[in-house]
Amino acid sequence: MENIFDDSYFMKKAIQEAEVAYEKGEIPVGAVIVIDNRIIARSHNLTEMLNDVTAHAEMQAITSAANFLGGKYLKDCTLYVTLEPCQMCAGALYWSQISKIVYAAKDHQRGYEVMGTKLHPKTEVINGIMEKEAATLLKRFFIEKRNLN
Amino acid sequence: MENIFDDSYFMKKAIQEAEVAYEKGEIPVGAVIVIDNRIIARSHNLTEMLNDVTAHAEMQAITSAANFLGGKYLKDCTLYVTLEPCQMCAGALYWSQISKIVYAAKDHQRGYEVMGTKLHPKTEVINGIMEKEAATLLKRFFIEKRNLN
Repeated sequence: MENIFDDSYFMKKAIQEAEVAYEKGEIPVGAVIVIDNRIIARSHNLTEMLNDVTAHAEMQAITSAANFLGGKYLKDCTLYVTLEPCQMCAGALYWSQISKIVYAAKDHQRGYEVMGTKLHPKTEVINGIMEKEAATLLKRFFIEKRNLN
Repeated sequence: MENIFDDSYFMKKAIQEAEVAYEKGEIPVGAVIVIDNRIIARSHNLTEMLNDVTAHAEMQAITSAANFLGGKYLKDCTLYVTLEPCQMCAGALYWSQISKIVYAAKDHQRGYEVMGTKLHPKTEVINGIMEKEAATLLKRFFIEKRNLN
């Protein structure tokens, strides 16, 4: 029997979160955290609504997953996020010792890789899953925002 | 007339916050954020109590100061923190565009400088203010923790 719980399955859930952010006028980035094929945290960027630069989807997901687990380390968890994490989020993921990060679109300007941020040595990274869908949503947001101003 | 509101004055307030963390069994790091010689945020590390790797003193202070100001940018603010910020906190400070960071003790292992994290180009950094007091409190914490285990 085919396993429906593959990376695309969970990335789709993260994209749904990004769509919620989009509807709120937030930069559309969404995230879910998964353990044993179970989603334990869902979140989307809320920096505008909360007036808070720390309210990235990943940061909220890390706090929420740790709260669910009752411990601050996310050793057996996977983060699915629609955009490559920034320095701040990669730094938080470093402290969380998360097992795996799957991201969709690359952030060539502010992504953690181009910025040189270090992840925990035990963290595996996969990228490019549903990249086109995630990137299209981001592009649409920025084009509309430019046209409004 | 002498200005009592110098860097040592505000760093003393940050150290008082670190002492509160120490009393709670948290790694003793404290922070305050100041605008026009007025403290608008006070915080200390709460990662153990909140089971949350994101609950560093700086992260809480950034959220709290933005909440006070009603805007997410901390352009005219100064952060006083007793230990050099990590990748996560430096990444958050990058997004906040904070004007000035003053830290006491250097973190040679996990500090943002050795990790290569980029701050905002407009952010000025000063370090070493009350370094000895901040470092002594941290050392005392780790020695006591080792003796307990």
